[in-house]
Amino acid sequence: MTANISLVLKKVNEIDFETHEAPVISEDNDVIVEVKKTGICGSDIHYYTHGRIGDFVLKKPMVLGHESSGVVAQVGKGVTSLKVGDRVAIEPGVPSRYSEEYKSGHYNLCPHMVFAATPNSDENGVNPPGTLCKYFKSPEDFLVKLPDYVSLELAALVEPMSVAVHAARLTKLSFGDIVVVYGAGPVGLLAASVALKFGASRVAVVDIVDSKLEIAKKIGVATHTFNATSGGIDELIAAIGNERPNVVMECTGAEKCIQSAIEILKVGGRYVQIGNSSKPVSFNMTAVVNKELTVFGSFRYGFNDYKTSVAILDNNYRSGKEKAAVDFESLITHRFKFKDAIKAYDLVKGGNGCIKCVIDGPE
Amino acid sequence: MTANISLVLKKVNEIDFETHEAPVISEDNDVIVEVKKTGICGSDIHYYTHGRIGDFVLKKPMVLGHESSGVVAQVGKGVTSLKVGDRVAIEPGVPSRYSEEYKSGHYNLCPHMVFAATPNSDENGVNPPGTLCKYFKSPEDFLVKLPDYVSLELAALVEPMSVAVHAARLTKLSFGDIVVVYGAGPVGLLAASVALKFGASRVAVVDIVDSKLEIAKKIGVATHTFNATSGGIDELIAAIGNERPNVVMECTGAEKCIQSAIEILKVGGRYVQIGNSSKPVSFNMTAVVNKELTVFGSFRYGFNDYKTSVAILDNNYRSGKEKAAVDFESLITHRFKFKDAIKAYDLVKGGNGCIKCVIDGPE
Amino acid sequence: MTANISLVLKKVNEIDFETHEAPVISEDNDVIVEVKKTGICGSDIHYYTHGRIGDFVLKKPMVLGHESSGVVAQVGKGVTSLKVGDRVAIEPGVPSRYSEEYKSGHYNLCPHMVFAATPNSDENGVNPPGTLCKYFKSPEDFLVKLPDYVSLELAALVEPMSVAVHAARLTKLSFGDIVVVYGAGPVGLLAASVALKFGASRVAVVDIVDSKLEIAKKIGVATHTFNATSGGIDELIAAIGNERPNVVMECTGAEKCIQSAIEILKVGGRYVQIGNSSKPVSFNMTAVVNKELTVFGSFRYGFNDYKTSVAILDNNYRSGKEKAAVDFESLITHRFKFKDAIKAYDLVKGGNGCIKCVIDGPE
Amino acid sequence: MTANISLVLKKVNEIDFETHEAPVISEDNDVIVEVKKTGICGSDIHYYTHGRIGDFVLKKPMVLGHESSGVVAQVGKGVTSLKVGDRVAIEPGVPSRYSEEYKSGHYNLCPHMVFAATPNSDENGVNPPGTLCKYFKSPEDFLVKLPDYVSLELAALVEPMSVAVHAARLTKLSFGDIVVVYGAGPVGLLAASVALKFGASRVAVVDIVDSKLEIAKKIGVATHTFNATSGGIDELIAAIGNERPNVVMECTGAEKCIQSAIEILKVGGRYVQIGNSSKPVSFNMTAVVNKELTVFGSFRYGFNDYKTSVAILDNNYRSGKEKAAVDFESLITHRFKFKDAIKAYDLVKGGNGCIKCVIDGPE
Repeated sequence: MTANISLVLKKVNEIDFETHEAPVISEDNDVIVEVKKTGICGSDIHYYTHGRIGDFVLKKPMVLGHESSGVVAQVGKGVTSLKVGDRVAIEPGVPSRYSEEYKSGHYNLCPHMVFAATPNSDENGVNPPGTLCKYFKSPEDFLVKLPDYVSLELAALVEPMSVAVHAARLTKLSFGDIVVVYGAGPVGLLAASVALKFGASRVAVVDIVDSKLEIAKKIGVATHTFNATSGGIDELIAAIGNERPNVVMECTGAEKCIQSAIEILKVGGRYVQIGNSSKPVSFNMTAVVNKELTVFGSFRYGFNDYKTSVAILDNNYRSGKEKAAVDFESLITHRFKFKDAIKAYDLVKGGNGCIKCVIDGPE
Repeated sequence: MTANISLVLKKVNEIDFETHEAPVISEDNDVIVEVKKTGICGSDIHYYTHGRIGDFVLKKPMVLGHESSGVVAQVGKGVTSLKVGDRVAIEPGVPSRYSEEYKSGHYNLCPHMVFAATPNSDENGVNPPGTLCKYFKSPEDFLVKLPDYVSLELAALVEPMSVAVHAARLTKLSFGDIVVVYGAGPVGLLAASVALKFGASRVAVVDIVDSKLEIAKKIGVATHTFNATSGGIDELIAAIGNERPNVVMECTGAEKCIQSAIEILKVGGRYVQIGNSSKPVSFNMTAVVNKELTVFGSFRYGFNDYKTSVAILDNNYRSGKEKAAVDFESLITHRFKFKDAIKAYDLVKGGNGCIKCVIDGPE
Repeated sequence: MTANISLVLKKVNEIDFETHEAPVISEDNDVIVEVKKTGICGSDIHYYTHGRIGDFVLKKPMVLGHESSGVVAQVGKGVTSLKVGDRVAIEPGVPSRYSEEYKSGHYNLCPHMVFAATPNSDENGVNPPGTLCKYFKSPEDFLVKLPDYVSLELAALVEPMSVAVHAARLTKLSFGDIVVVYGAGPVGLLAASVALKFGASRVAVVDIVDSKLEIAKKIGVATHTFNATSGGIDELIAAIGNERPNVVMECTGAEKCIQSAIEILKVGGRYVQIGNSSKPVSFNMTAVVNKELTVFGSFRYGFNDYKTSVAILDNNYRSGKEKAAVDFESLITHRFKFKDAIKAYDLVKGGNGCIKCVIDGPE
Repeated sequence: MTANISLVLKKVNEIDFETHEAPVISEDNDVIVEVKKTGICGSDIHYYTHGRIGDFVLKKPMVLGHESSGVVAQVGKGVTSLKVGDRVAIEPGVPSRYSEEYKSGHYNLCPHMVFAATPNSDENGVNPPGTLCKYFKSPEDFLVKLPDYVSLELAALVEPMSVAVHAARLTKLSFGDIVVVYGAGPVGLLAASVALKFGASRVAVVDIVDSKLEIAKKIGVATHTFNATSGGIDELIAAIGNERPNVVMECTGAEKCIQSAIEILKVGGRYVQIGNSSKPVSFNMTAVVNKELTVFGSFRYGFNDYKTSVAILDNNYRSGKEKAAVDFESLITHRFKFKDAIKAYDLVKGGNGCIKCVIDGPE
């Protein structure tokens, strides 16, 4: 357990394999996980093609990957909840235990967060290690043990699902809500699945690509779908069965979607922004006042969100696959061995109808 | 639509059929429902055998029944959400629109509630009509339209299920919670099903009758069961998989169960009391403080609870019966025609392994 | 009690007195109030000068006024909480008791609201009566009895203060919050006073008119003030004592203020929009996500807000004026007799350094 | 800064002075505080006279004191919010940064809490140091800097006040609430003051000793008082002005008070238990259900509670003592020099009409 094969983003448009030193246990609650499955995220691709996202700028080579599951390989002497061999989902961002945000139960907002594969923009900063490697070190409490019915591959979905869970929690989504999800990419589809699991009566997924909407239907996350090129607010309301939604999960960041969402929401509705916008949007604040809407910004995930995602997968599968309400497995449209990881990145970069691509390994 | 055959509790231990005048529409939002299915509740039996529950005393004959579904037979001119022929669940308690409780969104606490088959104890008071009759009148907004996948028979479960939904809402039950339900009668089993649907990771049902616990397992509402005669707190914790619950739903009112619940709850846990106690209980308030528990009293059901119960049934059945996580139908262990309703009451009075008995009709 | 002298907005720019028939009690819970004090609201002036606000268009003459207090003159036979002679604040908007919004405890969102001096835009619609008249009819539960220490004149502030209370409630404002209020008009100053009373540690009022900021200081509602023409975000942060606010109450609707507010808020901050914008604003949604802000639209006021405003005035004055933390009386900068009400409207229309102008009477 | 004069509870009924080694900075966020003022708590006296409270048993000598304020004497190199000379309130319990309770924002429930002057019951355990000494070490974030208007002596009240703040937060106490506080000891009186500051319209203090009730009135925390020996529920309701409370803060733990509280609460009311009971109480759970009460256990204090207490004192005094709504200073009925601390303990042990006794020093 010393050589750590790793997939490294060297600079814009250049990924390569490197063998680093494996992490060693330094704190009593440290755990070394052997990484088994890793999803590729849109942000990985963005660093690959642009070398930056907002203020986060790649200045040095960085190990990629932050949507991983694995098997416990070694535990620190203070670890009580896990043992070698346990299968786990890896939460990739570790906050400071001393920040006010952590102390108040909102650690996702901690300014000292060390987040896998998110570059340190300081000239002399060290990039937090990504998870696309053989061995990854994590504190015990940022690993969630997988129940029997949740496979390592499904557990690679836990990271993006937790983004949706966090947003659903903020809106207090519950039984009987009528939800519109804008965007049928991985996060949008997972948001729809989470809405369904939290009890939404109707979940309408809106996108401009029919093939994505068909997937939404097929895997069982959308009770309704709508191609936004086919009409405006009135047509969307009709498509939901002549009902205005009381909850919107906006996963695109696109100005038109944001405007549609504010316009369509029922009086008293809740809106959560998950997707990022590249620039300011023209926003109808008067509608927010007159309909007394609440707009939540949702940033990553925090306390219990990872556990909730695992609980949702467990809930979906524990009565057997044939009783599963959502076919989460079909979200994973492409699979690559670790040795072919560069091909995987290039495939995802090109689009190619990929919803979620998962890398298996390293061996 | 003028003769209204009705099942009447004449006095203690005497039930008979009577033909009353059918209700007529008097307000613009009135709806006349033709009653189709009615569950028998423990409270009905208690009035039958004792003539009272607490301060509610039977002083005059009263039409029985408050767990009903039916078909819309006639609508007032202001009714917009329902039309003749619609299938509906009937919420049996109608509060004053002018009370402070109604105004604040907590109408279940309205002191002027008119509740079907709950006697008016005033010497000259008129008993609110029960639902065990041909035609029952209700304001439009106390009827919930049934979706296609929810049968009229299942809709007879909506009333007791709403009791559980209300309690689950109070505790903010959600994914990942570990729940113990005390009592495996109809309300306990429905509470367990609601806990499961709200996302509980584990739902342990506790009772002292093995046959009831077997039903809990069989219909898919309990991930764990425990016969309380087989051990104490330590054994119960072991039976849940060596975890303390963070939520308890107490459906018995029995002192021993209440004490067990307070003792077993995890630090920071939530407790909701659903069942009624016949007298004060010996209660460990110091544990409530030291573990910082929250104890919720839950009374009937309120805004959106009926709709939520119907949404839960819809959620359970809309992908087909074979995919249903909970077999709600098996909660209905006995069925009688309206003309045999007195036999039905006598059967339930005797116990006879009955979970829920549903009366069909009148024709 | 039959002739009802009233101040009528006949059409744009034309106000006159008329004598109408006095209202009569028609429901058991009706109360007739003899109006004593009425504040002039910016919306009154806007109808006066433009004949409309958004979709609300003046099509027929309308009695003005909705910020009033008075003395009970007559009560319906079902009234229990008030008697003739009681001093009351009048809540001017009465919702439908049958709407879903009312039923759920959010009556301010009721689409059937009848709101004093807000025109009915239907061609054949009847305008709800305003309060600038001798006798005004209200249901009992939309009147709040004044405690001994709250004068009728101060009670004329209860309507705009309730707007601020509702907004403060939405943000869960509490002790230790650092609040920036944008706008030092009547609503902004009342929002600042409410923030202070709810326990804000610092309340910074931002405006572009120094004289208004001086009033904010003088009456004790602002711990800090800032003239927005004197600097940007950095200067504002410095002016608050080098702290970012965690709560913003935006009372202007101006794009620059909205942008400043989103930029200055602390991570996890809460923002409430009170003021109206005349058109869409350029809005930094990415900041809402990255700082996980919550943006509340706040519309008028609802359950318990009027009572809370009266409780705040009581809390402020019950230990005597010399111990009062806020000098609410100084918000009332101008006073007119009812017979001079047209002059009052013209004065407020012209600005003239008026914060709140109160009309006394009719005699 | 090496010799640390300390007041030590050697064993039951034996207190003495000892000179220990002063604490030294070991973590970057450590702060050494020179202790200036310390209140004596009932728990201190209980350890003095009984050597235990519940499961906490004194097995070795222990430095007393946990209600202290002081002046910063030395700071670790990572400390940014405090500097030498700053006046601070000391929060005496430091949780594990790694517990689930801390991570979720509820650190008061952390099972690994190290709490000043609370004995470690393990045979070989080390007692956490108390604050009754010259130098006390604390992490930076468990010290709250005092604003100008809050004296060091008043800051000795912050610890018990935070107990009340935590309870008030749990009940969401706000403007317009009608509150009954059972018990007029230091915590009860502080609970009443917190209720008042959170906006309660009426605060009724109940006790059986008239002199305590007179203090409640005199210092401005009670709008109403009631001697429980003078009557039952009906008399208490009358004494509050014929209103039932919607909030109760129970600070005695006495069975009779708990029963009275449950009986008197309004439908939908909130109850918070602060005081400890020595044994189980006879409890009317049926009333909890039928009135849909919520019963909160409140344990110590957590995130932001200390800051809130300091904010309350600031809010009370920043407009000058003559404008202060509550005379907190009069809660401090006795003062002793550190050299006379043993006399102070003996005085408090004897009762002697003492509300709060504060020790000044060590020099």
